[in-house]
Amino acid sequence: MNLSKRILVGGPVAAALALGAAAPAFAQVSGETAFVFNTLSFLMCGFLVMFMAAGFAMLESGMVRSKNVATICVKNISLYSIAGIMYYLIGYDLMYGIDAGGYIGSFSLFWSPDDTAALADAFPTEDAPGYAATSDWFFQMVFVATAASIVSGTVAERVKLWPFLIFVVFLTAVIYPIQGSWEWGAGWLDAEFGFSDFAGSTLVHSTGGWAALMGAIIIGARRGKYGADGRVNPMPGSSMPLATLGTFILWLGWFGFNGGSQLALGSAADAVAIADIFANTNAAAAGGVIAAMLASQVVFKKVDLTMALNGAIGGLVSITAEPLAPTLGGSILIGGVGGVLVVLAVPLLDKLKIDDVVGAIPAHLVCGIWGTLVVPVSNSDASFGGQIVGIIAIGLFVSIASAIVWFALKATIGVRADEEDEDMGLDRAELGMEAYPEFGAGSQRI
Amino acid sequence: MNLSKRILVGGPVAAALALGAAAPAFAQVSGETAFVFNTLSFLMCGFLVMFMAAGFAMLESGMVRSKNVATICVKNISLYSIAGIMYYLIGYDLMYGIDAGGYIGSFSLFWSPDDTAALADAFPTEDAPGYAATSDWFFQMVFVATAASIVSGTVAERVKLWPFLIFVVFLTAVIYPIQGSWEWGAGWLDAEFGFSDFAGSTLVHSTGGWAALMGAIIIGARRGKYGADGRVNPMPGSSMPLATLGTFILWLGWFGFNGGSQLALGSAADAVAIADIFANTNAAAAGGVIAAMLASQVVFKKVDLTMALNGAIGGLVSITAEPLAPTLGGSILIGGVGGVLVVLAVPLLDKLKIDDVVGAIPAHLVCGIWGTLVVPVSNSDASFGGQIVGIIAIGLFVSIASAIVWFALKATIGVRADEEDEDMGLDRAELGMEAYPEFGAGSQRI
Amino acid sequence: MNLSKRILVGGPVAAALALGAAAPAFAQVSGETAFVFNTLSFLMCGFLVMFMAAGFAMLESGMVRSKNVATICVKNISLYSIAGIMYYLIGYDLMYGIDAGGYIGSFSLFWSPDDTAALADAFPTEDAPGYAATSDWFFQMVFVATAASIVSGTVAERVKLWPFLIFVVFLTAVIYPIQGSWEWGAGWLDAEFGFSDFAGSTLVHSTGGWAALMGAIIIGARRGKYGADGRVNPMPGSSMPLATLGTFILWLGWFGFNGGSQLALGSAADAVAIADIFANTNAAAAGGVIAAMLASQVVFKKVDLTMALNGAIGGLVSITAEPLAPTLGGSILIGGVGGVLVVLAVPLLDKLKIDDVVGAIPAHLVCGIWGTLVVPVSNSDASFGGQIVGIIAIGLFVSIASAIVWFALKATIGVRADEEDEDMGLDRAELGMEAYPEFGAGSQRI
Repeated sequence: MNLSKRILVGGPVAAALALGAAAPAFAQVSGETAFVFNTLSFLMCGFLVMFMAAGFAMLESGMVRSKNVATICVKNISLYSIAGIMYYLIGYDLMYGIDAGGYIGSFSLFWSPDDTAALADAFPTEDAPGYAATSDWFFQMVFVATAASIVSGTVAERVKLWPFLIFVVFLTAVIYPIQGSWEWGAGWLDAEFGFSDFAGSTLVHSTGGWAALMGAIIIGARRGKYGADGRVNPMPGSSMPLATLGTFILWLGWFGFNGGSQLALGSAADAVAIADIFANTNAAAAGGVIAAMLASQVVFKKVDLTMALNGAIGGLVSITAEPLAPTLGGSILIGGVGGVLVVLAVPLLDKLKIDDVVGAIPAHLVCGIWGTLVVPVSNSDASFGGQIVGIIAIGLFVSIASAIVWFALKATIGVRADEEDEDMGLDRAELGMEAYPEFGAGSQRI
Repeated sequence: MNLSKRILVGGPVAAALALGAAAPAFAQVSGETAFVFNTLSFLMCGFLVMFMAAGFAMLESGMVRSKNVATICVKNISLYSIAGIMYYLIGYDLMYGIDAGGYIGSFSLFWSPDDTAALADAFPTEDAPGYAATSDWFFQMVFVATAASIVSGTVAERVKLWPFLIFVVFLTAVIYPIQGSWEWGAGWLDAEFGFSDFAGSTLVHSTGGWAALMGAIIIGARRGKYGADGRVNPMPGSSMPLATLGTFILWLGWFGFNGGSQLALGSAADAVAIADIFANTNAAAAGGVIAAMLASQVVFKKVDLTMALNGAIGGLVSITAEPLAPTLGGSILIGGVGGVLVVLAVPLLDKLKIDDVVGAIPAHLVCGIWGTLVVPVSNSDASFGGQIVGIIAIGLFVSIASAIVWFALKATIGVRADEEDEDMGLDRAELGMEAYPEFGAGSQRI
Repeated sequence: MNLSKRILVGGPVAAALALGAAAPAFAQVSGETAFVFNTLSFLMCGFLVMFMAAGFAMLESGMVRSKNVATICVKNISLYSIAGIMYYLIGYDLMYGIDAGGYIGSFSLFWSPDDTAALADAFPTEDAPGYAATSDWFFQMVFVATAASIVSGTVAERVKLWPFLIFVVFLTAVIYPIQGSWEWGAGWLDAEFGFSDFAGSTLVHSTGGWAALMGAIIIGARRGKYGADGRVNPMPGSSMPLATLGTFILWLGWFGFNGGSQLALGSAADAVAIADIFANTNAAAAGGVIAAMLASQVVFKKVDLTMALNGAIGGLVSITAEPLAPTLGGSILIGGVGGVLVVLAVPLLDKLKIDDVVGAIPAHLVCGIWGTLVVPVSNSDASFGGQIVGIIAIGLFVSIASAIVWFALKATIGVRADEEDEDMGLDRAELGMEAYPEFGAGSQRI
């Protein structure tokens, strides 16, 4: 069986107990100590993933034009907030309150933790989970937010604020949790197809990518992006250092994203696994950067900073489906292919007139598929057939569900800013402010 | 009794020991293991709180005009430095070297750690504290710095550098430690009134807020901020993405701020508590963001990014007095009220002609009071009477002491920049440099 | 014997075992628990040091002119990537695959971890190391990257991208590992001279500094920096808040840099040591900031933000050779001297017409020497003679090796951008893009 996103109840504790019988007592991680370690891992890795929200905010702030920067900031902080609230209201139970092999979880409201067993000092029993309930909730919550963050970058500079946030409500409350339940909730994909997605190349990154792709298609490209003659007009981002900072923050957060997905730190085996995951995650990102730089030198005859940055993200997404099994060298290669895919996919999207402001679809969707497909090469528990079923099932579900929500918003309150507002910039149109009132466009009005 | 900021000597260790008698040895966190966990919690949470200094620096850099950005940067890095030095010189002993129920601690110079007992492997005895002495010092030190950071934002753009830093010396060496000793030092507020302030809504945030309020009143508003006809002239901040980044960093740091205030990680109960605190802290911030956005849509007919950011901070401050007892839903509500308070308090301050450049008084003082007042709703160990006594006592002490220092500075070396310097910007006037020499105002001189 | 960078095989575990015989079992950190703690320390401290790459990127982005910002970003993310790949390919084995007292390690390709003993539950035996193999690799890898980051700032604004990256290949694959093996690999400097460099004032910071100095001399100053009449033309950095952010990130990362160099967290003694290191590291940085501000007030009659920032870094570098033994007060002094050295060294370099764009040579090289020299004052295991031998040996080796590579690059593909490209800025010349297309220089072409 492949790795599931949940610690089986009593799993690591029972394991520690079993080991306990065969070795001197002082050599063992005790039940309560393992409980603390596991909880600490969720919290530490969780705050790293939480900080990825800042990474997306900076990456997107740097990649949009200055007239839309304040709006992308408000979208990023509010989408993170909505994700946390919706996952509490309904999402977590929908994702994890599912029968093994099932298709949908329970529609309960207001999740609340139950740590009775642990607080009664009942660690060694089979019924006690090996971590604080809320630490798991927190860790899973920041993953939902990540999926939503991916969308905001793609549809930036033309989507209206409130309709976008309503989309985020549906994505984080319903769409993400349902597809997540199929695998990490131990639903049908996990049970019947042995689909394997350790930390979410498909479940998080492709999910965000499909939702973004549907948005980009349904909302349409920015005005003037694609000329009638097939010309692509570059619309360079306003701040390359902020985009770079955002990428570094994402890279940092990814140690938590992949490392925490081991879901335990309460034994030497877990510690070894997380250490390997950290190094592999870093190696894939490094491979992605260098491969994207070399590829852009070859394809475009120059190195492009945004390609290097998206190469890092592409490398990180590529290793996310299986950051444990590959060697360091294998991780560099997996990430390197991701970096090349980014460089190839960016112009392809432009050819299709799909306007992805920050390059999220190449990095998160394309590399998410690649990373998921390559799992069986290093992990013999996974099969190519199972991986393809998972990619298609989740891709279809998320795409259709997202398209329905985007279309419903379009048909009712509208999703797209007026032409005039788009030209003026969403900051002045929607917020009545400017991100840089003294610089660039802003300074001309002083 | 309510939670005190100090681990009682031998507390968690003795507790672990007591449990040890009733359960198999392998299930227990050992004394030395608990010592390591507790120390690790102080250090990890401490570095998160330390990073809040960067958060304040970025928030304030984004909220001031470009001609004052370098100055606010130098203030933030130097106030953090001064806080650390003064807390070593005198502050820590003044705060924690106090008799139970007392009014003032000891005026010893040069704090130094004593880990003799722990290093002698004496964990299980009653006399050994459950953590490295310096880890506690480090954690408390970053709290002092936070209080000082709050002040710099409010009085930005007109206070002179060295007088401001002298104020910081008094705040961090004397004012903060004395009021802190009353509660976290187990002084009279803790002993006689059962005042409850888990992580410092009043002790840290309102303290910073009162000091800032006195500064804003005594120093006066920025030139031109309030017109003779009662008009408020907006002076928009120079970089919204930096303000957003700062807010995200503060949010991240707050996990350490509130989580570390559990003061222990050496048992399953502590791990469960910190997990709940992490999630509640996040929920309150999320509630603050969404409530502030909705309130600003209602009140101002548009969403304002700075309100969303200050809504996050207001929500975080609101939950800080009691981040453990509420449910997740309760935390969203507590933070949400904080977010609304921010939106209401900002124009109120302008009506009173109190010029708070970054909105620190609404977020830290107003929400600090709200968060402290609401504690008894979820924590039955606290009483409304005790909370009100604490709010008033600390408010009066900090306000009077701060006013004395501000007035003394005003009467001697002066606290306010010359009119000409203020118009030119403090960066050129005080530092002889520019924050963005090629952009905005700077570019006009190239 | 002085502290070596490696945990001796079985060291902490054997110690725990020995203690285990004398005390009640429940008071001890068990072998497996210590393994998890040690690994966790490497990973947590490692991600903090990794984030220093973002700190250098922001510091350097803020200190170069806007026409070179995108290039410095691409250099920083790619040098970090290269460091990780080269350290895997050859560096780690070259550094740690060395015989005790030796001069050079083994030239093995493709490092891979061996955790067999730990995974076989063999912690208490003499043969089992006390941490996951990859966690140590990860922690050492981020140190190599730090050394390379130092170089990029000094030679910014005129070095070409690919030649710089080739230099990084040699620095991280060969030069850094060989000198590192002499001390942390337990080679001749450690064995014969008792050289002591706890976390790398010399091994990391001076190494980066010497490589940078050779680059600055061989590549030459930026065009127009030094007038024929001996005048120094200021070329102010483009963004002071980004430089400030970078410094704060470096400060944060330094807790991992120095704290993690304890190399263990598996006992109370280790926890006490790391706590002391955290506080001392912070104190030295604080001392550096305040001393640099006071010194620049005295020397230049004004406070300079960049001096305050470099004062922080100078203080941090100064304490890095011995962050454990000094008192808090001693650390403030050690860091304070570092801050003063920065203020004195910056104009000295200009007098020598050595053009160091970000001030890396004063902060990393000068303070690295100072910090290494002062070790014997607090640590009686070190001697002034041994320290001087280490400083000279590593200084000579790194300088000569770096000069050979810089000269070889100069003689073949060239290291310096054309005059026209330098004037235009490397962003447009090498990347065909601009960092801020709407601001400053960029806005004039809109």
